[in-house]
Amino acid sequence: MSDFHFDSLIKGIQAGDRVVLGQVFTLLESTLDTHRQLVNQIVEACMPMSGNSMRIGITGVPGVGKSTLIGQLGLAYCQNGKKVGVFAVDPSSVSGGGSILADKTRMEVLSRHPQAFIRPSPGNLAPGGVTRHTRESILVMEAAGYEVILIETIGVGQSETLVRDLVDIFLLLLLPGGGDSLQGIKKGIMECVDLLAINKSDGAQASIAQQTATAYQQALQLVQHALPDWKVPVIHTSALQLESIQKLITHIEQCQQHFQAKGWWQKQRSEQDVKALHRHIESLWLQQLQNKPGFTNALKKLEESVRANHSSPYLAGEELIHQFS
Amino acid sequence: MSDFHFDSLIKGIQAGDRVVLGQVFTLLESTLDTHRQLVNQIVEACMPMSGNSMRIGITGVPGVGKSTLIGQLGLAYCQNGKKVGVFAVDPSSVSGGGSILADKTRMEVLSRHPQAFIRPSPGNLAPGGVTRHTRESILVMEAAGYEVILIETIGVGQSETLVRDLVDIFLLLLLPGGGDSLQGIKKGIMECVDLLAINKSDGAQASIAQQTATAYQQALQLVQHALPDWKVPVIHTSALQLESIQKLITHIEQCQQHFQAKGWWQKQRSEQDVKALHRHIESLWLQQLQNKPGFTNALKKLEESVRANHSSPYLAGEELIHQFS
Repeated sequence: MSDFHFDSLIKGIQAGDRVVLGQVFTLLESTLDTHRQLVNQIVEACMPMSGNSMRIGITGVPGVGKSTLIGQLGLAYCQNGKKVGVFAVDPSSVSGGGSILADKTRMEVLSRHPQAFIRPSPGNLAPGGVTRHTRESILVMEAAGYEVILIETIGVGQSETLVRDLVDIFLLLLLPGGGDSLQGIKKGIMECVDLLAINKSDGAQASIAQQTATAYQQALQLVQHALPDWKVPVIHTSALQLESIQKLITHIEQCQQHFQAKGWWQKQRSEQDVKALHRHIESLWLQQLQNKPGFTNALKKLEESVRANHSSPYLAGEELIHQFS
Repeated sequence: MSDFHFDSLIKGIQAGDRVVLGQVFTLLESTLDTHRQLVNQIVEACMPMSGNSMRIGITGVPGVGKSTLIGQLGLAYCQNGKKVGVFAVDPSSVSGGGSILADKTRMEVLSRHPQAFIRPSPGNLAPGGVTRHTRESILVMEAAGYEVILIETIGVGQSETLVRDLVDIFLLLLLPGGGDSLQGIKKGIMECVDLLAINKSDGAQASIAQQTATAYQQALQLVQHALPDWKVPVIHTSALQLESIQKLITHIEQCQQHFQAKGWWQKQRSEQDVKALHRHIESLWLQQLQNKPGFTNALKKLEESVRANHSSPYLAGEELIHQFS
């Protein structure tokens, strides 16, 4: 594309130029082949400059207060002198709420801060593309000097597992009161949480929040963290009590220090990279099959034949693979 | 394999020979290449003789009483003159409980019935192999004249979604009292349930069971069934009240009649076959890559290089695909 010049984009990223960053994020969402090639070059060029941030995933059901908390957490980091990047991973299937700029008001102060860069979540990505897109966004943010990356994900479907594989620290927000079901918590999520915060722990809710925290502290004793000697802290947060946001930052720092001291920080990133390698190989290899001339038509014919009960899925599958090998 | 003769195996299946059936199920679990080839032939030969059963998936958390209910439901079908096949889909990762013969006592009467065939769940299958193994088991059971196939699955992880894609009717068992979380219910399962039974609805539990039923009837109003005019019934079952088992059978029949009248029965099976085709193509195609000489070593080297941060997962992936294309 003559609209974009590789060298000037890379320079712009390195300089932290906000206009260039916006262009690059738009390119990352493109599915055009020419854009894809450019994106691959950009991501490769960013890699040596990346990796120096703290990547934090924040999940919880709609209404738990993710956006407000991210707004305040981001602002607190900015005030500590950090550059803060924010974006959301949204499964495209979920309509409505959750997209960051849809409720920009909740992050309005942060969005105006010169050290913060908020990127809304693209709505049009294929499920398989979400992971790659998010990984690439992280790398570009880091190359542009962002030191804290906050990734919001609504805790439904597969999105939180996906985000877990992209971040260093995973924070689950809960509401005071209510069992797992009321809170929409998926089984298995406790196993992959590093920090747990009872949000909106203020006013009349404070004592219920205390009970909820105790209940989850007990529940967490039954759960084995991937790093066996890490004890998941259950803390209280409230957008109305700024000291609770500072406490959260302290807990995040302690988590980072512990993970780094144990070698877990680097190990986790390496394993995430290997997973990305596997996913990328599978997706490229399947693409090769799908791109073969005549594949789409051949598949359609076999689908019809299977639907009409004229051939078995197994024989039909083997026939197709044989034909295109 | 000279131990097994294709023709005599097929004849044995058609005759419903229990010894032959046992052998075939053992073959289905084998990963030996020669066995695989024979299995493919057997499954193909069974296909024209298959499809005439009612395939029922039964899910619920451990302790909800799946095995006991299946034992009694199977027995009732046998007494109605049907041949009944039973097996379990168990994610191999789950240790302990759930394997049918581990609690054979709960199905002991059924297991001695000449019209029933119970097959324990194999523990050693790869996750990807479970779906295929279960599909093949269904086809063989049907070719051997089994008219009701009951598939037990513990409702954790992915296994119930997997079973949903293999059965005509999906039954969720719940306990009286307790919210979703206490019952370990995964979000999204309500969307794919055809029948809902509050099990152990007897004695002191009866009135709580009534409240639970009412609560779920209301909850189900918010959920859209794939066949829009099917209203998921919430019924009561109890191993102590045999008339409740007969009522369950009546509800299953009504479900079958409705699905058949609307063309849903056949449509669902066709779409399940097309899904199986897609999964089979993907798995065969990925196998081709994995089988290429040198692939495993090349992958290992790239993994190390990615772990050591010497190459990016994306470039490494492309390099590997390029090398083996």
